[in-house]
Amino acid sequence: MNRKLRMGMIGGGKDAFIGAIHRIAANMDGLIELKAGALSVNPTIAEESGEMLFLDKDRIYTDFKTMLESEAAKPADERLDFITIVTPNFAHFEPAMMALDKGFHVVIEKPITLNLEEAKQLAAKVEETGLSLLLTHTYTGYPMVKQARQMVASGAFGKIRKVWVEYPQGWLSRLSEREGNAQAAWRTDPKRSGKSGCMGDIGTHAFNLAEYVTGLQAEKICADLNIMVEGRMLDDDGAVLIKYNNGAAGVLMASQVAAGEENALKLRVYGENGGLEWAQHEPNTLLVKWLDKPTEVYRAGNGGAHLSSFATHNARTPGGHPEGYLEAFGNHYRNFALSLAAKIDQTEASPEALDFPTVKDGVRGMAFIDNVVRSNESDAKWTTFEV
Amino acid sequence: MNRKLRMGMIGGGKDAFIGAIHRIAANMDGLIELKAGALSVNPTIAEESGEMLFLDKDRIYTDFKTMLESEAAKPADERLDFITIVTPNFAHFEPAMMALDKGFHVVIEKPITLNLEEAKQLAAKVEETGLSLLLTHTYTGYPMVKQARQMVASGAFGKIRKVWVEYPQGWLSRLSEREGNAQAAWRTDPKRSGKSGCMGDIGTHAFNLAEYVTGLQAEKICADLNIMVEGRMLDDDGAVLIKYNNGAAGVLMASQVAAGEENALKLRVYGENGGLEWAQHEPNTLLVKWLDKPTEVYRAGNGGAHLSSFATHNARTPGGHPEGYLEAFGNHYRNFALSLAAKIDQTEASPEALDFPTVKDGVRGMAFIDNVVRSNESDAKWTTFEV
Amino acid sequence: MNRKLRMGMIGGGKDAFIGAIHRIAANMDGLIELKAGALSVNPTIAEESGEMLFLDKDRIYTDFKTMLESEAAKPADERLDFITIVTPNFAHFEPAMMALDKGFHVVIEKPITLNLEEAKQLAAKVEETGLSLLLTHTYTGYPMVKQARQMVASGAFGKIRKVWVEYPQGWLSRLSEREGNAQAAWRTDPKRSGKSGCMGDIGTHAFNLAEYVTGLQAEKICADLNIMVEGRMLDDDGAVLIKYNNGAAGVLMASQVAAGEENALKLRVYGENGGLEWAQHEPNTLLVKWLDKPTEVYRAGNGGAHLSSFATHNARTPGGHPEGYLEAFGNHYRNFALSLAAKIDQTEASPEALDFPTVKDGVRGMAFIDNVVRSNESDAKWTTFEV
Amino acid sequence: MNRKLRMGMIGGGKDAFIGAIHRIAANMDGLIELKAGALSVNPTIAEESGEMLFLDKDRIYTDFKTMLESEAAKPADERLDFITIVTPNFAHFEPAMMALDKGFHVVIEKPITLNLEEAKQLAAKVEETGLSLLLTHTYTGYPMVKQARQMVASGAFGKIRKVWVEYPQGWLSRLSEREGNAQAAWRTDPKRSGKSGCMGDIGTHAFNLAEYVTGLQAEKICADLNIMVEGRMLDDDGAVLIKYNNGAAGVLMASQVAAGEENALKLRVYGENGGLEWAQHEPNTLLVKWLDKPTEVYRAGNGGAHLSSFATHNARTPGGHPEGYLEAFGNHYRNFALSLAAKIDQTEASPEALDFPTVKDGVRGMAFIDNVVRSNESDAKWTTFEV
Repeated sequence: MNRKLRMGMIGGGKDAFIGAIHRIAANMDGLIELKAGALSVNPTIAEESGEMLFLDKDRIYTDFKTMLESEAAKPADERLDFITIVTPNFAHFEPAMMALDKGFHVVIEKPITLNLEEAKQLAAKVEETGLSLLLTHTYTGYPMVKQARQMVASGAFGKIRKVWVEYPQGWLSRLSEREGNAQAAWRTDPKRSGKSGCMGDIGTHAFNLAEYVTGLQAEKICADLNIMVEGRMLDDDGAVLIKYNNGAAGVLMASQVAAGEENALKLRVYGENGGLEWAQHEPNTLLVKWLDKPTEVYRAGNGGAHLSSFATHNARTPGGHPEGYLEAFGNHYRNFALSLAAKIDQTEASPEALDFPTVKDGVRGMAFIDNVVRSNESDAKWTTFEV
Repeated sequence: MNRKLRMGMIGGGKDAFIGAIHRIAANMDGLIELKAGALSVNPTIAEESGEMLFLDKDRIYTDFKTMLESEAAKPADERLDFITIVTPNFAHFEPAMMALDKGFHVVIEKPITLNLEEAKQLAAKVEETGLSLLLTHTYTGYPMVKQARQMVASGAFGKIRKVWVEYPQGWLSRLSEREGNAQAAWRTDPKRSGKSGCMGDIGTHAFNLAEYVTGLQAEKICADLNIMVEGRMLDDDGAVLIKYNNGAAGVLMASQVAAGEENALKLRVYGENGGLEWAQHEPNTLLVKWLDKPTEVYRAGNGGAHLSSFATHNARTPGGHPEGYLEAFGNHYRNFALSLAAKIDQTEASPEALDFPTVKDGVRGMAFIDNVVRSNESDAKWTTFEV
Repeated sequence: MNRKLRMGMIGGGKDAFIGAIHRIAANMDGLIELKAGALSVNPTIAEESGEMLFLDKDRIYTDFKTMLESEAAKPADERLDFITIVTPNFAHFEPAMMALDKGFHVVIEKPITLNLEEAKQLAAKVEETGLSLLLTHTYTGYPMVKQARQMVASGAFGKIRKVWVEYPQGWLSRLSEREGNAQAAWRTDPKRSGKSGCMGDIGTHAFNLAEYVTGLQAEKICADLNIMVEGRMLDDDGAVLIKYNNGAAGVLMASQVAAGEENALKLRVYGENGGLEWAQHEPNTLLVKWLDKPTEVYRAGNGGAHLSSFATHNARTPGGHPEGYLEAFGNHYRNFALSLAAKIDQTEASPEALDFPTVKDGVRGMAFIDNVVRSNESDAKWTTFEV
Repeated sequence: MNRKLRMGMIGGGKDAFIGAIHRIAANMDGLIELKAGALSVNPTIAEESGEMLFLDKDRIYTDFKTMLESEAAKPADERLDFITIVTPNFAHFEPAMMALDKGFHVVIEKPITLNLEEAKQLAAKVEETGLSLLLTHTYTGYPMVKQARQMVASGAFGKIRKVWVEYPQGWLSRLSEREGNAQAAWRTDPKRSGKSGCMGDIGTHAFNLAEYVTGLQAEKICADLNIMVEGRMLDDDGAVLIKYNNGAAGVLMASQVAAGEENALKLRVYGENGGLEWAQHEPNTLLVKWLDKPTEVYRAGNGGAHLSSFATHNARTPGGHPEGYLEAFGNHYRNFALSLAAKIDQTEASPEALDFPTVKDGVRGMAFIDNVVRSNESDAKWTTFEV
């Protein structure tokens, strides 16, 4: 590859949080350049945002359809390579389908769509077009999460028995959606966010992290969703008991009313011989626990022979120079870019580069939402996890 | 009180773990002296243990009935004040009832009895005799647990919404009961341990801790108990969803197959304005979290004006001189002793001294075991918590 | 500013560590683009590196002089804005002087020059030209370090009495310079690294961090430098006692033979009323300690009213989404870029944007090296810190 | 041994802190009973304290000389076995000498005497009488400190190069000695405390801990002592650079004006292959660091094969049941008691039981005080450590 990949962005104007994150992640490694954007449904914001990002005037669009059509018509050496979609959940599906139809690869912020049906259609479209889709489940981009997955897969812990994953936040402890908090407003609105609030927003991350690290899949679940703040329209709290397909028992806890918590995603996995613990607040550390010997502290980037190639590939700094959330996000972009470059160059991407979340994770995530909502409404203890 | 209280012990011979812990806890503050013991059902062990503890020859007994009868017949200035029962669960009820009948106060290692029915009878007997019973739920003896309870009660956090309590251990990750581990053998044997293993042994601690700190009571539960090690007779793992009587939602997780974990009891409670976090591995620290300001690190014994009298009363050292499990245990003994001394002196014990676990905690603990076993066997999601 | 700033780089070819870090830091926020490079003294590496970075062929140079001359001759709308120098220490001075002479702003990796004399000349040149110089003392780019400085300056802790700063690494525990480690080779070679090894490489960071946070300046020092690994040419370990200009007493410890340590820079400062603790391994946390109330845990990015504008300005993510070393590095680039843009636009940069390390920090850093080496050689306990 | 050892106490009345600690430590394991006391120079306090401790009326003394004489005259089966001296520093020597002369073993709170000369005389007396003396340097009683010493001795880390020991406290941040704080008053008074404040009180602990764990001895030192609070008579802060007898370089930092700190003693030791870190605030954890593999977390009491017999012998509980300061204190009493019992029974005490601090540690501690004060007053960088 002798050039940077060209990215267009839908959503993510100057008033949005996640768009800026995507741009930092995409910029970080010098493999990608933002070339075009339909950054807001508000034309003024779209234009101002494009200027702030130094886009060429003629590639600042005010609607995504015009962008996709115009860009699709450009010659190969100008044409966008991929489209990043960072709108609220309800506005993912249509631009994603159209982008794929126009031949663009796609990046989508999670959750992938508004509902499971859309996710399945999108998966079919990806399959049909042979294009790539990156779903930005940030947390699986951390090097120590990669390490965790490789260690479980290696059989070091024996059969996995227990999975505990938790995701406490406190930012919805008050009825912020009525107090002018735009983030809170759309995330607690079923029309824009989908049929679950907390479980859709952060429960999916926890679910995805657990399945990614263990390689297991949920088979049966028992969900309890709660609305803790009076007047809220969607769940802001919940817990899910899980039976995995190897017999392991899981507990998933997510809350957005854990007042005083920031974003404390944490995973613990236990097998016959040991287990591991990873927390997003200190992401460069992986505790590796053993039945018969002292706990070991694995650290990202320290270059030891004990680290898997997947951990090393996803670190940019030597041990002790902490990388964080943006680098984890950047790892997904970097791997996506490396795999696209390989496609373009008709070479083979490395297994490490191909290890990023795809539309398949998106389908399971939407199924998770569907299933927890159904289980929550049921009087039966266990419901089968259906996709 | 112008003398030490006189203690007799049933069980706790030299081959037992928990008896030694009770003796250290009782010795610690110089308020109690061990004067007699029926320390084992094995007469040789009973005698050797008594000698090792420097008991007078004639107060080393080989069965508890003889001890209770002989001691009851002694004059007031020699007579035992209370009896500590540290036998396996199945052998608590009979000596406890007899001790009360003979006029002795009682200390019992938890769980209080083999089943709920016995616990209720014991509670009635305590009521009838007017004697005191200390149930050694160790963890509520920690000063920072006392502090937590007082802070919740003060309303500082507003209405409590969430309770997460977890208790991971790893020591039953293998089938140790078949490999000569005596502790494992009786604790996994329904005849000696009761109808639950993990939930009876450690789940009850977690349940008690959560109710103690929050002042709430479980109303409905949904339990999932597992036997993770093939060949085991009782649950070694489980999770319980809880609805408390104020509408708060709880999750209780306990496992004895969390390989690599020691004894990692941890409680998190969240209210409208903030929450708290306490972990037994670092018991002198209480994290106090707030919605709108930085987390505060409360520390045992540092004598600040922010500490409740219950926290201060239960510390022996200034801040930074860590106290631990034995001191928490000792606090129960100390408070029990202070309250007995007040009874004997016909004075009033302080609220701090009266704050120790009693037969009421025992009844709720046995009810917990009953209810989780029943819920686990049920296909219904929610079962009512019955006592 | 309606365009990105144009950066040229000297050093930092594909075989170098720190060049890649600078590029990530510069890329991160989309304010800067790398346009030219003289990336290695080895022409093949220079060219291959330039291609890997997608530079235009005609802006890939094989020596820095040609680059500076060619780029200086370009029209204003193509011309580089600034030059980043990431060569080993001995090769900083000459290109920096020439870049300034040609009218380019400059970024230099620390330590700024090979010796104090060069640093002073460079400072004079910066003064004379009115251009900007960023010295990448990474650690003062962390938001919680900014917070620390602001809190000390606010007087919250009263007069500062104690400064403890430590920087343990373990990577030079063996004679790696003889085992093919190129980093180790130049860093332990006086010709390329200067008159101190450990103190020059990491002691300067510790010294700079302490002076930055406290606003104090060293007045007298007592240094003990050691060569712990036989055969090494420069100090790999040391400690310095410091008397600051307000009477505070400091201890600075740095070691590259603390086997098993990564990069554990840590600062503690104590005043009359309280103090603070910051550790680079967990950079998003600042412990704020008080004489009379509980320790508070300040967290980067959580947007509380207790955070200074300097902390908030230097965070990209909400609380709980950890930022790390690369973001701290990126903060220096971002602030440097914002201040250059203000110069170019003839507007005023914010105080937050102007808060980056300059040539003045470079002069003090070189003075530190001079002074510790002199003190180490002296039999007198105290030597005056001279600049 | 078929009885408890009989202890008499000098000092430690109801208004004193450390006396209570000694009694708890002595009580803990049921090997010792307090039988007599001259608990205060104030007769009322002496008597009231004796009664509170349930001493026989005729063994409550109001001066130590009478106690030692009366007790020495008692028959063997009543006579005290040892005397514990917990008066302020200046009042250690005379009763200790007299106790030894009367044939009693001795326990002394540290620092052992008011000055080095007294310490040497006491050492000679111990030698002459063949009696035992326990100096309660608490911190070497922790099981993980024992483990650390054994690991260094085993050579696992290779030659030791670095020793960092620090002891920050904040309790003397104000002029508390003038505000009615009795502890502060005597500890900052040269007549009662000796020629150093901070270094005498806590520096000696740090010094002792470092020599105990490493097995090294200081050869040269460079000390900087400070009085940070105006009006104070003795140092409240300081740092000492140390050269050990194997060439290792040490830094000892101690402060009582580190506002916001409790009692944060911490030791780090590094050798050629790795190192270790132990902190009193979390005393059950020992971090074991390696040059080429992950850090290991050793935990007290978890019974692994990796723990030395010295660690296991000094733990009372299984892993995860935290022991603390009182148990560390209790370990010294327990080992002292076991070694006395062996003497009495004319058997051999185990190496583990014999591992407690003696008069030799006391002499080195007093020498430390002497040497740091001398070094502090000297303009020379290095002074030889003399005993």
